[in-house]
Order: sequence, then structure tokens, then C-alpha cells
Amino acid sequence: MDRRSSWKTECPVVQTLERVGERWSILLLRELFRGAHRFDELQTSLGIAPNILSTRLTRLLDAGFIEKRLYQEHPPRHSYHLTQRGEDFIPVLFVLLEFGNKHFAPDGPKVVVVNKDTAETAEPVLRDRKTGDAITSDRFTIASTTLASAQTQSKYSLQACEPARPERTRVAKKTPSR
Amino acid sequence: MDRRSSWKTECPVVQTLERVGERWSILLLRELFRGAHRFDELQTSLGIAPNILSTRLTRLLDAGFIEKRLYQEHPPRHSYHLTQRGEDFIPVLFVLLEFGNKHFAPDGPKVVVVNKDTAETAEPVLRDRKTGDAITSDRFTIASTTLASAQTQSKYSLQACEPARPERTRVAKKTPSR
Repeated sequence: MDRRSSWKTECPVVQTLERVGERWSILLLRELFRGAHRFDELQTSLGIAPNILSTRLTRLLDAGFIEKRLYQEHPPRHSYHLTQRGEDFIPVLFVLLEFGNKHFAPDGPKVVVVNKDTAETAEPVLRDRKTGDAITSDRFTIASTTLASAQTQSKYSLQACEPARPERTRVAKKTPSR
Repeated sequence: MDRRSSWKTECPVVQTLERVGERWSILLLRELFRGAHRFDELQTSLGIAPNILSTRLTRLLDAGFIEKRLYQEHPPRHSYHLTQRGEDFIPVLFVLLEFGNKHFAPDGPKVVVVNKDTAETAEPVLRDRKTGDAITSDRFTIASTTLASAQTQSKYSLQACEPARPERTRVAKKTPSR
């Protein structure tokens, strides 16, 4: 991917996927969330080669999703834990899980999202914080803001863009496409 | 990954990532959602090698996320479109986008989720359909149901599991871990 092209690098999906856009990284975050923290635990649990595990852990450390803690001094041994950023990623995991249950669990879900206090199964649905509307692909889209480069604005122009209301960052008006 | 191990294959996150657990696949779905449908459009827009694009399109076709339509007969040319399954994946894209904006857009968001009718910027948040509670990593977790294998149940046991209420699929009780 051409990293100099602003419209590619300005997309927050790209920004996220550059850090965790790979199956092992996402499954590692799942394991840490599930409670596996030590290198050998993670290795056994995922059935991952040690060198791949090591690379992925380093990438997640560098990207600030996890941190390591010394749990044994001689010889030094570290355990791995989610940072706040890593915790913030967990809802992505929940959405992936819900999608998987809807489409790839014909006999019913085997793994679900559950409220810790009530043990009640949750039904995760994406809603707009302000209006409470369900955020679905037919009613919502992706648009650029006025902070974006002209190139990004031309890619992510909104087809039927109303005059933007006063907001922190306004949605960019439609730029004529070539 | 050992595909015979039930606890790995029973996870809906794994099921999903096996189909789209790769950056190009997710970005392809983004492009189709954004309105790019033809091979050369997708190639230019993503800056992707034709053979990689071709492989990824085939995988998405096979997995039922997209379908192709003939738009020219001589020579035959196809365009690619999201199926209902592909549309259902778009909320995952929105959550990735929101996460990216929160963590990797220090100068403010350049690309946002927008209501098509009002052009108002949305704030996607994951909520429980039944209770309306925000689904966060501190209050919710992943648990296995009674449909899961014993291996999966031992991995995804809920620490403080109440007797499950009558539900379509009950959350599995904690299995003693070894």
C-alpha cells in the first residue's frame, strides 16, 4: 500500500488494521481478555509457533495495546496484559463474535457475550450514542470531515450531504468526482 | 492453527477471521461499501497488486460476503457487490473506524460514521439490545453456551456464573480448570 497517499493513511480503519489487521493479533487480544497472560499459556492455547507469538506480542506492545509485567525475577519472566487501548478494542471482538454467531453458527451459538454480573447473554447492537438509532449499513455511511485532505474528501464524499450542523468536526461537502 | 481443536473452531471470532481476518479483505469490503465496484477501480483505489486483489475477491465470493454481476458482455466484465452478509459486516467496519478515531487521530477525526439522511456525525457505541447497557470490557465477557464442547466450556467458563435463566441457549456453568 502506498503510505504517502493521504486518503489511505487518513482512514481510521486503515490506522487500526495496520496495528491489529491480522488474525493472530486479534486472537491474542482475545486470549489476554480471556485471562491467559503468560507466553507458554498463550502459545499452547493458540497453537502458535513461538517466533510468530513473539513477533505479534512485540507489535502489540509497540502499538500500545498490551503491556508486560515481570512475574519472576530469576530467570526474568513476563506476563502480558491489556492496556486501556487493548480494553477499548474488546468491543470490536464482541462485534466480530456477534457477526460470527449470526452467519457461521447454524446450530446455535457456542460462545456468546455475557453480562458478568447477571450471566445473562447480551445481544450486542451498534447504536448512535446521541439518537439511540441502530447503526446499520443502509442508514449510515462513512464520510470525510473538513480535517481531511482534498483527496480523502473526494473519496468519502457524502452523496446527499445536507449543510453540516455546527459540530466539533464538520462533515466535508461533496467534492465533484472526476 | 490446529483446525481439529474444537475450542478454536467453535469460537465465532475465529470463524469470522478465517474469512476476513486479513487487512485487504476488510479494506475491500470498505471499498465496495463506499461505492467502488469494478476490478480496476478497486485496484487503483487500494493500490493492490492484481493477483492479490483477484485472490481476495475469490475468497470473499466463496465466503458469501460479495457477489459478482456481469456489466459488460464482450468481453465479459463483472462488478462486485456486497451481499446481505457483506452488509452485515459493515458495523464491524464502523467499530474499527470508531476505535481508530479514538486512538489514532490525535488531531481530530478525518473520516467518520454519518447518518445518510441527516448528514449528522454518529457516535457508534455497542449496547445490549435488551437492556440498553453499554457493552464494555469491564462489565461483559465471553462465555460458552451449553452447545459448546467440553473443551470450549473449560476455556470460556464464566468466573461468577449465576444459574442461567431460561434462554434460547444457556451459558455453560464453570467447568473446573486443570
